[in-house]
Amino acid sequence: MRRLLALTQGDPAGIGPELALAAWRQRERRGIPPFAYLGDSATLSILAERLGLPVPLRSVGWDEAETCFDTALPVIELEHRAQAQSGRPDPANAAGVIEAIERGVEAVETGKAAAIVTNPIAKSVLYAAGFRHPGHTEFLAEIAGRGREATPRPVMMIWSEELAVIPVTIHIPLAEVPEQLTTELIVETGRIAAADLKRRFGVARPRLALCGLNPHAGEGGALGKEDAAVVAPAIERLRALGIEASGPYPADTLFHARARAGYDVALGMYHDQALIPIKTIAFDDGVNVTLGLPIIRTSPDHGTAFDIAGKGIARPDSLCAALRLAARMAAAEHGAPA
Amino acid sequence: MRRLLALTQGDPAGIGPELALAAWRQRERRGIPPFAYLGDSATLSILAERLGLPVPLRSVGWDEAETCFDTALPVIELEHRAQAQSGRPDPANAAGVIEAIERGVEAVETGKAAAIVTNPIAKSVLYAAGFRHPGHTEFLAEIAGRGREATPRPVMMIWSEELAVIPVTIHIPLAEVPEQLTTELIVETGRIAAADLKRRFGVARPRLALCGLNPHAGEGGALGKEDAAVVAPAIERLRALGIEASGPYPADTLFHARARAGYDVALGMYHDQALIPIKTIAFDDGVNVTLGLPIIRTSPDHGTAFDIAGKGIARPDSLCAALRLAARMAAAEHGAPA
Repeated sequence: MRRLLALTQGDPAGIGPELALAAWRQRERRGIPPFAYLGDSATLSILAERLGLPVPLRSVGWDEAETCFDTALPVIELEHRAQAQSGRPDPANAAGVIEAIERGVEAVETGKAAAIVTNPIAKSVLYAAGFRHPGHTEFLAEIAGRGREATPRPVMMIWSEELAVIPVTIHIPLAEVPEQLTTELIVETGRIAAADLKRRFGVARPRLALCGLNPHAGEGGALGKEDAAVVAPAIERLRALGIEASGPYPADTLFHARARAGYDVALGMYHDQALIPIKTIAFDDGVNVTLGLPIIRTSPDHGTAFDIAGKGIARPDSLCAALRLAARMAAAEHGAPA
Repeated sequence: MRRLLALTQGDPAGIGPELALAAWRQRERRGIPPFAYLGDSATLSILAERLGLPVPLRSVGWDEAETCFDTALPVIELEHRAQAQSGRPDPANAAGVIEAIERGVEAVETGKAAAIVTNPIAKSVLYAAGFRHPGHTEFLAEIAGRGREATPRPVMMIWSEELAVIPVTIHIPLAEVPEQLTTELIVETGRIAAADLKRRFGVARPRLALCGLNPHAGEGGALGKEDAAVVAPAIERLRALGIEASGPYPADTLFHARARAGYDVALGMYHDQALIPIKTIAFDDGVNVTLGLPIIRTSPDHGTAFDIAGKGIARPDSLCAALRLAARMAAAEHGAPA
């Protein structure tokens, strides 16, 4: 079984390249699995020199990458080289950003890599270059779905050792949450979550805990009807599918240590309900995992951070956790203990 | 300066009485300040015996309570004695529940006690006995406001050593939050918070951090207009009042340890946004503090817990923290270092 991970450069003007350097340097101390960097070694070596990070780079093909990882950072060279200055995003780099993602997905689909780990990109930069997908994840889903009947529906999970959460609705105004939250959406999200936890996290019977939408999960209807009308029926339907779903629980009391022991993933009904607890307790090392794809994909839970890019101060904790988790998911999918 | 605290019995069928026993027993180990229990010693001694807790009780007046605290739990006897069986709430106890609150407030107002700490009550039980106030806090505000021009506007803060939060809107359906959240309400809440942090927490220049209502604080309007239209103007007005208010911040990144170092209290725009982070990190020892009252009032951050009352398994952590905080607030108000 192939262990190698494909790590995309992300936006080359962001912190992705320096995080890749840092992760490779800390590979022993942090137990980082072997990865190949999809980018270009010229840009990377200038950055390494400027940051004073002695990292030997080696331009390789997929077959050599894993064996050379101990002694050099393997680089899969892109056709579209970056003109990147750290902190100065440039639409001229869009083609390379996209190429890295496409080639990473292809490598996983063809068995050259076990999983893809994506460094952050900036949508606005890609839009300026004509990119037409709503975001990084949707683009990945589309590529990974090519040649399939339907584009897979990606589900975002933020994972840490202490807690994993999924927001059912995500980037919409709070006022639109009650109308956009449907039983169907909750069931579909829960179904994908349960399937991936089983297949890629080695959890035999995943336990899903669902937050109520309203304070105190509606308190019997006194604080809102949706918990009884929308969330509870979704839990019933998930249970009818054989999935161990429970709730709706008051969200404020669901995330302390004793409560967390009772489930494998918590589904929040909206962005902040799911992301506040995990970023409160695992701000630096949360991992963004895309469930529901034919391939395994993780990414660090932060953005391009153009404001600090190239300064050597960005923390590689989240990328390191993303690399480790991707390897663990790949192993679990192949039957290794999670 | 009087140090004694007035501790109400709360609902005598709930966990309040056994928590009072536990707090007194742990007075040395946990550094519990002297308190007098407003209840009745007959009921309390039966409970102590049944739980196997050797606690000497002494029926006293306010003047003797503080000096006897080292050797016995001082009880201020109520006229309305409880008929309480743990776990069996009874409207017949409502008069005693209310008497304890009224006498506690009176004791603080007349200088016999430094602050009131209230054990949890069950509104439904009081309603069945004809109680007409929306809740415990509103009732306290009304009593404490008697003889004043206007009833004080109470503001709920949940406090712990690590984090203090205030929900600006509280017990309403999520769908009603966007319409009920007004600039006026945020300003008034922030004003009261800043005044009390200064007066009763010894914070010379309280720093208020305000959450955005929407994910990513609205992301420049793409994810909702309220952060620019409602929250930001409130921050401006608070700053015009000389209050160090900042935001609106994306709520998910505001509560990890490094972020928390940047403010004294965070204002969440709705219940779960404020209560999820504090209950995630301080589930057992959060304290409910009512700001904006003429008197100091704290209470444990949990309910009557009828389901476990009388079993001796309820944790006194939150009550102990409430007692300690009340004493600390009273000292700060009298100029002692916080």
